[in-house]
Amino acid sequence: MKFKTYKKDFEYSYALGASPAIELLQNRPEDCFKIIFSPSYPDNGGKIKNLCEKYNIPCEENQKFINILSPKENCYVIGAFKKRSQTIAQNKSHVVLDNPSDMGNIGTIIRSCAGFGISDIAIIGNGADVYNPKAIRASMGAFFHVNIEYFRSVGDYLDSHNNREIYTFMLDAEHSLSDLSVTQNIYSLVFGNESSGLDYDIYKNIGKSVVINHTDKIDSLSLPIAVSIALFWFGRF
Amino acid sequence: MKFKTYKKDFEYSYALGASPAIELLQNRPEDCFKIIFSPSYPDNGGKIKNLCEKYNIPCEENQKFINILSPKENCYVIGAFKKRSQTIAQNKSHVVLDNPSDMGNIGTIIRSCAGFGISDIAIIGNGADVYNPKAIRASMGAFFHVNIEYFRSVGDYLDSHNNREIYTFMLDAEHSLSDLSVTQNIYSLVFGNESSGLDYDIYKNIGKSVVINHTDKIDSLSLPIAVSIALFWFGRF
Repeated sequence: MKFKTYKKDFEYSYALGASPAIELLQNRPEDCFKIIFSPSYPDNGGKIKNLCEKYNIPCEENQKFINILSPKENCYVIGAFKKRSQTIAQNKSHVVLDNPSDMGNIGTIIRSCAGFGISDIAIIGNGADVYNPKAIRASMGAFFHVNIEYFRSVGDYLDSHNNREIYTFMLDAEHSLSDLSVTQNIYSLVFGNESSGLDYDIYKNIGKSVVINHTDKIDSLSLPIAVSIALFWFGRF
Repeated sequence: MKFKTYKKDFEYSYALGASPAIELLQNRPEDCFKIIFSPSYPDNGGKIKNLCEKYNIPCEENQKFINILSPKENCYVIGAFKKRSQTIAQNKSHVVLDNPSDMGNIGTIIRSCAGFGISDIAIIGNGADVYNPKAIRASMGAFFHVNIEYFRSVGDYLDSHNNREIYTFMLDAEHSLSDLSVTQNIYSLVFGNESSGLDYDIYKNIGKSVVINHTDKIDSLSLPIAVSIALFWFGRF
């Protein structure tokens, strides 16, 4: 097999870096089909090689592949894995991202979701490719702890998941986060695109709208910050 | 004057992008000595040109400078400004960052500080250059709403600011954030480096140690996320 720079239409993707590769091996070994090492990676205690042996995954030293797949970054291990269609759970709370655009933000959000007990993430629209290695790397490997399902529209999402409280995060909202009493039911926290937010015309009649209050010195909080504060608040961590 | 790629030892720096440049012009016009435009920037309503006229700041179209100063980014306006030694206020709450290393993180933290009412930030150690254009850009211009002062060590910081409650954020802590009742006094929230955190030997006898609880699916929260959750909690937003 030839390794090429990742493209969205590939049937596989890459976990770049030792931590993401270890998370891949520990949590989705059935999807991993190859581990590539830099000869200069110490692999203390043989952790990665042992995991490869355990799951019968081929493992090779190849600096050239690393240079091709991660030309700019300080990366010593790469895990190649098959993409797999995932389905989010009916009986769990979700984070819903409507057309997120920044790969680093998506990864940071995944990391916060895993950290605050949300394992199911819905993505509305086809813009964002969560399999992009940048998103996986920014998640620090938490990508392999969550399920992510795509929906064409928020209507499609609600058709499949109508058993929950919905909270839509927008600046022009009825409720402030810190005034909300935390629900005992399952819920979905819905966030819009980094620049444009949630489309008011689409979302005005869906769930409860919520704002995270801030001073007028900034236009908005960054998206991963807003999601993480909401997760912290709702999860009572 | 010749414009060169930013270096830490320069006496000036750059606000890259329209929003940061506008924040510079509105909040620190006395420090701005030049605005550079791309010919393709629309400047709707002449906002930037009007501010330059108001404050008598030279303003020129120069795509070549833009390409040199921001080769990769989608940047149409640059504000050049003099660095200025700043002092944080005695009578205000602070965020204290001990040896932060990532410019994007510093910028995101500055944005959250401005958004949650903290205008005074202490940096311990000389590693991080908050004037790096990447930090200023990541702050979305909130950089020009805050004061940032450097301290050689946390001891130096405490010598100057002993009139407050200190909260040190670390994984191995006595208190969990959500169990803390919010103080009515002024306070400082102290955070360590992205990889290494706060040095336990130095910080064990300083203030109250606090952890933001999370699941064991991640090693830690990202630094800007941790700072922002703490700001949200302490600020009662």
